[in-house]
Amino acid sequence: MRIELLNTGSELLLGTVRDAHLQWLAQEIFPLGLRISRQGTVPDGSPIRDLLQEASGRSDLLIVTGGLGPTTDDITREIAAELTGRKLHLHQETLDRIQERCRRRGFAFQERMTRQAMVPEGARVLPNDNGTAPGLHIPGRDGIPDIFLLPGPPRELQPMATAHLLPFLREKTAGQDRHECRIYRVVGMGESLLEAKVGLELSKRSDLEVGYCARPNEVDFRLIGPKAVLDAVDPLVLEVIGDHLLPMEDDSMEESIVRMLTERHLTLATAESCTGGLLANRITDVPGASAVFLEGFVTYSNASKTALLGVPAELISAHGAVSELVVRAMVEGVLAKSGATHALATTGIAGPGGGSEEKPVGTVWLALSSKGEETVSWKQHLPLDRKAFKRAVTQSALDRLRRHLKSSLK
Amino acid sequence: MRIELLNTGSELLLGTVRDAHLQWLAQEIFPLGLRISRQGTVPDGSPIRDLLQEASGRSDLLIVTGGLGPTTDDITREIAAELTGRKLHLHQETLDRIQERCRRRGFAFQERMTRQAMVPEGARVLPNDNGTAPGLHIPGRDGIPDIFLLPGPPRELQPMATAHLLPFLREKTAGQDRHECRIYRVVGMGESLLEAKVGLELSKRSDLEVGYCARPNEVDFRLIGPKAVLDAVDPLVLEVIGDHLLPMEDDSMEESIVRMLTERHLTLATAESCTGGLLANRITDVPGASAVFLEGFVTYSNASKTALLGVPAELISAHGAVSELVVRAMVEGVLAKSGATHALATTGIAGPGGGSEEKPVGTVWLALSSKGEETVSWKQHLPLDRKAFKRAVTQSALDRLRRHLKSSLK
Repeated sequence: MRIELLNTGSELLLGTVRDAHLQWLAQEIFPLGLRISRQGTVPDGSPIRDLLQEASGRSDLLIVTGGLGPTTDDITREIAAELTGRKLHLHQETLDRIQERCRRRGFAFQERMTRQAMVPEGARVLPNDNGTAPGLHIPGRDGIPDIFLLPGPPRELQPMATAHLLPFLREKTAGQDRHECRIYRVVGMGESLLEAKVGLELSKRSDLEVGYCARPNEVDFRLIGPKAVLDAVDPLVLEVIGDHLLPMEDDSMEESIVRMLTERHLTLATAESCTGGLLANRITDVPGASAVFLEGFVTYSNASKTALLGVPAELISAHGAVSELVVRAMVEGVLAKSGATHALATTGIAGPGGGSEEKPVGTVWLALSSKGEETVSWKQHLPLDRKAFKRAVTQSALDRLRRHLKSSLK
Repeated sequence: MRIELLNTGSELLLGTVRDAHLQWLAQEIFPLGLRISRQGTVPDGSPIRDLLQEASGRSDLLIVTGGLGPTTDDITREIAAELTGRKLHLHQETLDRIQERCRRRGFAFQERMTRQAMVPEGARVLPNDNGTAPGLHIPGRDGIPDIFLLPGPPRELQPMATAHLLPFLREKTAGQDRHECRIYRVVGMGESLLEAKVGLELSKRSDLEVGYCARPNEVDFRLIGPKAVLDAVDPLVLEVIGDHLLPMEDDSMEESIVRMLTERHLTLATAESCTGGLLANRITDVPGASAVFLEGFVTYSNASKTALLGVPAELISAHGAVSELVVRAMVEGVLAKSGATHALATTGIAGPGGGSEEKPVGTVWLALSSKGEETVSWKQHLPLDRKAFKRAVTQSALDRLRRHLKSSLK
């Protein structure tokens, strides 16, 4: 099944907005054994017609985003109707829904919103729970593929695609082979060496697809294939990568932590040096975090580590701020001061300056302390860009806390 | 000049990486009076050939990203050579450079890296200071447009484009009219109403281009035209939008603050409630922040506001945590405790829960305190999603500090 994604919107080509649809849709359809074979972006207006026409000749499904709004530059609906040779008619239920939405939100209904209730004949209306413009599914016929028109804002598109596009695709692909994608994040080892050591050998297998993606100071080594095959080659890959492996990214990490803490009436506090507030920020990004997150300290200077967390100044001068003893004093200090049941602490060298032979840029000490339990501390070397370093350190801290909460549940 | 951007890489269509090139390039070329007229993404392998061929027939310049690496799936170079009918030859200087880079970084040179030193005849080599793969500029001829091949990783592409692509475009467009783009971020006012009140009228002018982009709970109202025209209509637009206007985003905000503080030997501390560490995190994202940022408090609970910042408990119970008196006590508390010359504080209701009739979700109090000066406090109502709210509040706080530092410099 050849799926093409068409993003419309002058703001995308002006760079004032960064497209989020390709990534989201690709991740959502991959578990169905599907991929987006091609994606294109055009500005508002007639270029939409050209792209729709071209893509329609080479695809089984077109997903078009944007251009369904109420203003005069929103013409995707009209172009799709024209291309598929279908007349537009007023869909009363949609108009009622838009008027009701305006009332509920205290906006005055504008006559121009009526355009959003126009529907090509034979098309299925996909209600929009988060905006005025409904989506549309125009069934394929006469060599023209199925077309889904979805609204541009991600928070309107995503629930709509989940409710209507994904079930449509699930039905189409029922019973087909589904592959998994496994990504190994590798640091301190180039893609050439990875290919020589393991990639080339694996790429000879017909049941595996091998890929590489260079990122700031790391390489994503990607394998796609049936789960059993991925599981079978996993030990080999891990052996080659060794301790060059980084923990996986997972944006829901903080959500699962807040959920587990809330359910068990536990609380959290943080003491950060090198992560500079990112740890607290990630936790407080989760709605309801205020029920479990008590307080956070960003003790960037040595003096603040002593004054706020009670880290002895002698300890810092003897071992340096980036040391096991200091991170343990930090985490125990914040646990005691805050009265929280759990605490995390970080201290490291984010760079670009501040490194030494003994403690190069990227060195970090982390610690987790839980009331009535022994403090756990660990060291990592993450030679990444400043922002990626902060992200990876918080990831490591949160991951340790998550695993600790999970295991103490058992 | 018709510019087309071609992004290659299976990781983009799998959704494991989100494209950053379109936005960056679009923003860089706009000041030259140029736009990207169309963008496309294809996976590694032969689809690159199809897209290059099609795009080459309708454009004056192709910018191709990715596929220049050392592994077997990197074939952009070969495809471009084939399409333009140019033979590849070994470029010794590039090979030397790659070998030197490996030595410097302690990586073993891999034979397969030699491919990265292959250059189509007549092409200009664009040295890569941040990776092994050089870029290439293949001059246009015989109806085939100019082609720039650039590496996929943004931190390799961006300096290379700045050094080679932008000067090429600057020369091509010298003396041409240049437009500006002004974006008004509007909250609490829909795009239909904006169009009715001001957009439609302005769109009748031939010297202005009007656009709208719906975002979570806000609308970007966009005007493009000569600076003089934008300046002339600005008061009219501002009058219509009134206090529905949000402050502009500017990622370099924190950089200019750290620079100003560093130059003048000043220091900063923060006390955050609703922003939960984002303020400290943004400041500490800037390399060298440790010279000016002393400490930050994330006082999420009421008890922590009292214990850590000395905010009287009676003040909180009498006025609520989200109040002018509390934010002033927070900022003065952190200024005194930290010994910093400047301090910022935030307290508000990020939502989705916690709002009331009197203090709805989105209400926030902010304060700035500077040693020896009177504390400044201000209130805003920013009914945004949780993350956008935190971002907008930190933006407001940083903006106030930046303006304060600027004005006190005079």
